[in-house]
Amino acid sequence: MDFGTIAGIVIGTFCVVGVGMSWQIGPFIDVPSIGIVFGGCLANLLLALAMDTVKSMPKSLPVTFKASKDDPVEIIKKLVEFSEVARRDGILALENVLEQIPDPFLRQGLQLAVDGTDPELIQDIMETEMDNIEARHGDAKSAWDMFRSGGPTWGALGTVIGLIQMLKGGVEDPNALTAGMAVALITTFYGSLIASLMVGPFCDKMAVKNGEEMSVKTIMLKGVMSIQAGDNPRIVEQKLKIFLAPTQRGFGKDSEG
Amino acid sequence: MDFGTIAGIVIGTFCVVGVGMSWQIGPFIDVPSIGIVFGGCLANLLLALAMDTVKSMPKSLPVTFKASKDDPVEIIKKLVEFSEVARRDGILALENVLEQIPDPFLRQGLQLAVDGTDPELIQDIMETEMDNIEARHGDAKSAWDMFRSGGPTWGALGTVIGLIQMLKGGVEDPNALTAGMAVALITTFYGSLIASLMVGPFCDKMAVKNGEEMSVKTIMLKGVMSIQAGDNPRIVEQKLKIFLAPTQRGFGKDSEG
Amino acid sequence: MDFGTIAGIVIGTFCVVGVGMSWQIGPFIDVPSIGIVFGGCLANLLLALAMDTVKSMPKSLPVTFKASKDDPVEIIKKLVEFSEVARRDGILALENVLEQIPDPFLRQGLQLAVDGTDPELIQDIMETEMDNIEARHGDAKSAWDMFRSGGPTWGALGTVIGLIQMLKGGVEDPNALTAGMAVALITTFYGSLIASLMVGPFCDKMAVKNGEEMSVKTIMLKGVMSIQAGDNPRIVEQKLKIFLAPTQRGFGKDSEG
Amino acid sequence: MDFGTIAGIVIGTFCVVGVGMSWQIGPFIDVPSIGIVFGGCLANLLLALAMDTVKSMPKSLPVTFKASKDDPVEIIKKLVEFSEVARRDGILALENVLEQIPDPFLRQGLQLAVDGTDPELIQDIMETEMDNIEARHGDAKSAWDMFRSGGPTWGALGTVIGLIQMLKGGVEDPNALTAGMAVALITTFYGSLIASLMVGPFCDKMAVKNGEEMSVKTIMLKGVMSIQAGDNPRIVEQKLKIFLAPTQRGFGKDSEG
Amino acid sequence: MDFGTIAGIVIGTFCVVGVGMSWQIGPFIDVPSIGIVFGGCLANLLLALAMDTVKSMPKSLPVTFKASKDDPVEIIKKLVEFSEVARRDGILALENVLEQIPDPFLRQGLQLAVDGTDPELIQDIMETEMDNIEARHGDAKSAWDMFRSGGPTWGALGTVIGLIQMLKGGVEDPNALTAGMAVALITTFYGSLIASLMVGPFCDKMAVKNGEEMSVKTIMLKGVMSIQAGDNPRIVEQKLKIFLAPTQRGFGKDSEG
Repeated sequence: MDFGTIAGIVIGTFCVVGVGMSWQIGPFIDVPSIGIVFGGCLANLLLALAMDTVKSMPKSLPVTFKASKDDPVEIIKKLVEFSEVARRDGILALENVLEQIPDPFLRQGLQLAVDGTDPELIQDIMETEMDNIEARHGDAKSAWDMFRSGGPTWGALGTVIGLIQMLKGGVEDPNALTAGMAVALITTFYGSLIASLMVGPFCDKMAVKNGEEMSVKTIMLKGVMSIQAGDNPRIVEQKLKIFLAPTQRGFGKDSEG
Repeated sequence: MDFGTIAGIVIGTFCVVGVGMSWQIGPFIDVPSIGIVFGGCLANLLLALAMDTVKSMPKSLPVTFKASKDDPVEIIKKLVEFSEVARRDGILALENVLEQIPDPFLRQGLQLAVDGTDPELIQDIMETEMDNIEARHGDAKSAWDMFRSGGPTWGALGTVIGLIQMLKGGVEDPNALTAGMAVALITTFYGSLIASLMVGPFCDKMAVKNGEEMSVKTIMLKGVMSIQAGDNPRIVEQKLKIFLAPTQRGFGKDSEG
Repeated sequence: MDFGTIAGIVIGTFCVVGVGMSWQIGPFIDVPSIGIVFGGCLANLLLALAMDTVKSMPKSLPVTFKASKDDPVEIIKKLVEFSEVARRDGILALENVLEQIPDPFLRQGLQLAVDGTDPELIQDIMETEMDNIEARHGDAKSAWDMFRSGGPTWGALGTVIGLIQMLKGGVEDPNALTAGMAVALITTFYGSLIASLMVGPFCDKMAVKNGEEMSVKTIMLKGVMSIQAGDNPRIVEQKLKIFLAPTQRGFGKDSEG
Repeated sequence: MDFGTIAGIVIGTFCVVGVGMSWQIGPFIDVPSIGIVFGGCLANLLLALAMDTVKSMPKSLPVTFKASKDDPVEIIKKLVEFSEVARRDGILALENVLEQIPDPFLRQGLQLAVDGTDPELIQDIMETEMDNIEARHGDAKSAWDMFRSGGPTWGALGTVIGLIQMLKGGVEDPNALTAGMAVALITTFYGSLIASLMVGPFCDKMAVKNGEEMSVKTIMLKGVMSIQAGDNPRIVEQKLKIFLAPTQRGFGKDSEG
Repeated sequence: MDFGTIAGIVIGTFCVVGVGMSWQIGPFIDVPSIGIVFGGCLANLLLALAMDTVKSMPKSLPVTFKASKDDPVEIIKKLVEFSEVARRDGILALENVLEQIPDPFLRQGLQLAVDGTDPELIQDIMETEMDNIEARHGDAKSAWDMFRSGGPTWGALGTVIGLIQMLKGGVEDPNALTAGMAVALITTFYGSLIASLMVGPFCDKMAVKNGEEMSVKTIMLKGVMSIQAGDNPRIVEQKLKIFLAPTQRGFGKDSEG
C-alpha cells in the first residue's frame, strides 16, 4: 500500500470537503454539472484516442495505490547471491533457483543466461521488453493526462453554457441570478478538482512508479549481464550499488571488506 | 467504422445539448456569432496557409471515422506466408501473389524485391514514400490544429465586439443588458466547443491514425527487407513480432515451437 | 497574386465588420485607442530590435500577397533540359542559356558550374546564399511576430488605463460608466484584431512562403550539382522528382519510359 | 549566511505587509483559507511524489540561507599548493594533508590519487558522485516546484468554492456579499504569495546554489586529475583559472610571472 | 547612441502618458502601489539570484542605449590591412600596430599570433574568452528577464490585496468602492508597464546587442586565425565577407578584381 497516495487523498478530500465546504456538500452537488464535465472528458478520450488506449486506463490506476513492489537493495542482494552460485557451481546451477524468482522479467533474463544465449541477444531481448513496458505505461499516462487537461476545459465550457442560460433568463429576481451563477460555477469547480486532486496528481504518481520500476529493471538487466559474464560477486555488487543512493549502500561484502 | 469516434461524438453532443442545455438549443443559436467564429477561422486558414494545405483538410477528416484498415497481426501472417513461398520456390514465385495484395505500399515493395532491385534502393524508396505520406498527414493535421486554436481566439474577439456594442447601448434596460451579454458570450461558447469537441479531439485522432498507419508500414518495410534477404520464415516472424504488444504475439510457428 | 491571402482578408474583414459590427463601425473607432495600441507596438519594435530589422519589415509583407513565383515542376523540366544540353554539347554549351534564366540564384549556380568551379565550392557558395536568405526571412518574421504578440499586450495595458480612469470618475451616471468601459475595451479589441487577423496570419504565411522558396532553391541546388556531375538527364529527373508530391510526378521521360 | 535571501525576505514581507496591507494583517488571515491552500499543496505532494522525495524537501531549504561554503579562488589556491607538494615530494606526500581537507568530495578524490588508482576510474567515481548529488538536488527542487505551482491552483480552487457558497447565500445583504467575496479571494492571495514570495524564489535559489556547488566540484575534479597527472603547478593554476570570471583571476604565480 | 532605443522610449512614453492618460498622470501615481510592485520585484531578485548576478544588472543596461561600437565592415577592412602587413613584412611586423587597436579582444588575439603561440591554443583562448563574455551577458539578461516576468506577478498580487481591502470595507458608498477598485488596478497597470515598456523590450535589446558583439568577435577570431596561417589578403577578405549581408559586401580587392 502506497501510504503517500492514501494520505494525499485523505488530506486533499478533508481540505476540500471539511475545510473549504465546512462539511456542507449540498451546494456543490449538481448532477447535470457532473454529467457535462465527466461525460465531456469521456467523449474527448473516446474521440481522440485509440480504443485500446482508453481501455488500458483503468489497469494503470491501481499501481498508484500499491507500494513499490521491488526493493532495489533486496534485488541487488539476490543478484549477488546468484552470482556466487554461478561462480561456485557454474551458471547451470542457477536453473534450480529460477522457479523461486517471482519477477518474470528477471526470471526470463536468467533463463536466457542459463540457456547459454548470446549476451548481446540477452541484452536486446531484455531492453526490448523494457521499451515495451515503458511504451504501455506512457500510453496509459498520456490518456490520463488528457483527462487531467480535459477537466478544466469542459468545466469552462459548462460555465459558459450556464452563464448564457442565466443571462437569457433576465434580471427580475437577483437571488435567481446569483443562484444561477453559483450553478454555472460548479462545472468550473469540478474541472479544477479533476486537475488538482482527482486526476492530476495520479498522473504524476504514475510517472514516479514507472521511473521506479524502470530503475529496478535496469538493475536486473545489469545484474544478469554481469552474472552471464562470470563477474566476481564483489564486482557484481560494486557495479549494481552505483544505482543506489549513498545512504542505501551500507551492506554486503563491499562494505565489510 | 471507428467505434470510439462515433461514441465520442454521441456522448459529447449529448453532454452539451442534453445535459448542459436541457435540449433547449434556442438560446445557443445565433447566426452572426456562427458567422464570426467559423468565418474568422476560415479567414485565418486561407490567410495563413498555402491553398493546397487548406484544400487537403477535408480529405483527412474521414480517416478519423474509419476503423484502422490494417491489422498488424494479419499483415505479419501474410508476410510470413510470402517468406515461405520465397524460400520454397524462389523470390520470383511471389510475382503470382502480388496482384492479390490490396495495399499499394506493400505491393510496390514486393514488386521491387521480385525485380531484383538492390536492397538499399528498396529501403530508400519505401522510406521516402513513408516520409511523403507522413509529411502530407502532418500538413493536414497542422491545418486542423490552426482551426482548433483559432476557435477560442475568434470566440474571444466576438465576445469583445459584443460587449462593446452592449455597453455603448447604455444601461436603461437591465434585461437588455444581460441579454446582450448572453449573446456576446455565445461566440466564446462556439470557440470553446471547437476546441473541446468539434475540432480538437479530431486533431488528436488524426495523430493516432497516422501513428498506426506508420507502424503497419514499418512492419511491411521490415518484412519486405527480410524476405528479400532470404530469411528463414521463422526468423521473419520473430523479427516482425517485436512490433506487436506481448498479448498479440500468441500465434504462428514461433509459439507452436 | 496569392488568392488565399486576398480571400482571407475579404472574409475576415467581412466577418468582423459585416457580421460582428453589422456595418456600424462608429463605436469601434477611437483615435486614442488606435494610438496607444499601434504606437505601443511600434515603440516595442524600436526599443527591442536592431534598426535594420525594423526597417526590413515592410519589405517582407508584399511576399504574402504574391503567388509563389517558381513552380517546382517547371524548374525541374528546365533543369532536365539543361542537363540534356550539357550531355550533348558539353557543359560549356550552357553559357548560351544562362542569360535566359530569370532566377539569379540558379543563374549564379550554373555560371559557377560552367566556369569549372570545384563542385564542393559550388555547393558551399549556394548553401551559404540559402542560409543568408533564410536568416533574412527569419529576422523579418521575428519582427512581425513581436508585432503580433505586442498587440494583445498593449491592448490589455490600454484597457487597464481606461478602467482606472473610468473608476476614478465615480458612479454617479451609470450610462457614463458603461460607455467608459466600452471605450476601455476597444484597445483589447484592437490587440485581439492584430493577433487574429491584421498581423498574426501574415506571420504564418511568411513562414509558408519561406518554406516554398527554400524547397525550390534546394531543387535548384541539387539540379546544378547533378548537371555539374554530368548525370544522365533521366537520373537528374529521378533525383529531383523526389522533392515533388506523388501527384505532381506524372511528367517527363521517366513516366513515358 | 546568504545576505540576498535574508534581504529578499525582509523587503518582500515589508512590501506585502507594510506597504500593501498598511500593517493591518487582520483581513488577510483566514484559517480555513490557510487550510485549503497549504493542505491542498501538501496533499498534492503526497499524492504525486514518492515519499522519499517529499521527505527530502526540508533538507534542501536551509541551503538557500547559507552563504556559498566554498570560494572557488580559495579552492584553486589550495589545489595549486597540493600540486606543489606532489611535484616536490611525490604524490604520496599528500597523505599528510588529506585530513585537513574539510570537503569530503575533494578528500576522497585526492585519497584515490594517493592510492595510485587508475585516472579513468578516479574520474568515473568523482563524476558518478557529482551526478548523484545533482540528481538529489534535482529531486528536491522538483518537489518544491510542485509546491510553487500548486499554490495558485489550490488558491483558484478555494476561490471558486468561496464564490459558490457566497452566491448560493443570496443577495439580501450586499455587505455580506462583498465580505464573502473578500474571503473567497484570500485563497487566491495565499496562492499568489506562495508563487511570488514564499516558495517560488527559493526554488530559483536552490538552482543557483546547485550550480555554484557543481562548478566548485568541477574545479576539484579537474584539479585532482591535474595533480594525479603530475602537472606543473603553474599549468594546474592555468587550467583551473579558466573556470573563474576574469576579475577573479588576479592572483598566484601566473599573474606574478 | 542607439536611435531605436531613444525613439522607442519617447514613442512608448507618449503613447501611455499623452495618448492613454491625456497628460493627466495624477490618477496613475500611487506610492504604495509603486512600493509593492517594484519592491516585490527587487525582493524576488535578491531571494532568487546570486548577489553577483543582481549587482551585474545595472552594468548591462547602458549597452542598450549605445550604438553598436564595432562596424563589421571596418573590422574586416582592418583585418585585411593587417594580413597585408603580415604577408609583406612578416607577422612580427604587426607588433607595431597592436597598440593602435582599441578592442582588447582583437589586440590580445593578434598579440598571441605575434608571439608565435600555437594556433589551436590561440583559438582555444579566444573562444573561452567569448564563452565567458556570453555567459556574463546571459546572466545579466536572465536577471532582467526575472524582473520582466516579476512585474505582472506582483501587479496581480497587489490587485488581489487591494480588492480584499476594498471588499472588506463594505458597499455603503459606491463611489468609494469604484475608487478602491481603481487603486487596486494601479498595481496591475505598473506590472503591465514593466513587461511592455519599462523592462521587457530592454531584455530583447540586450539579446540583440549580445548577438551583434558575438558576430563581430567571431569575425575577429576568424581574421586572427587566417592572418596567423599566413593566408593571402584576398583569401582573408573572402573568408570574412561571408559574415556580412550581401548588400554590405561591395568593397575591397575582391569586388575590384
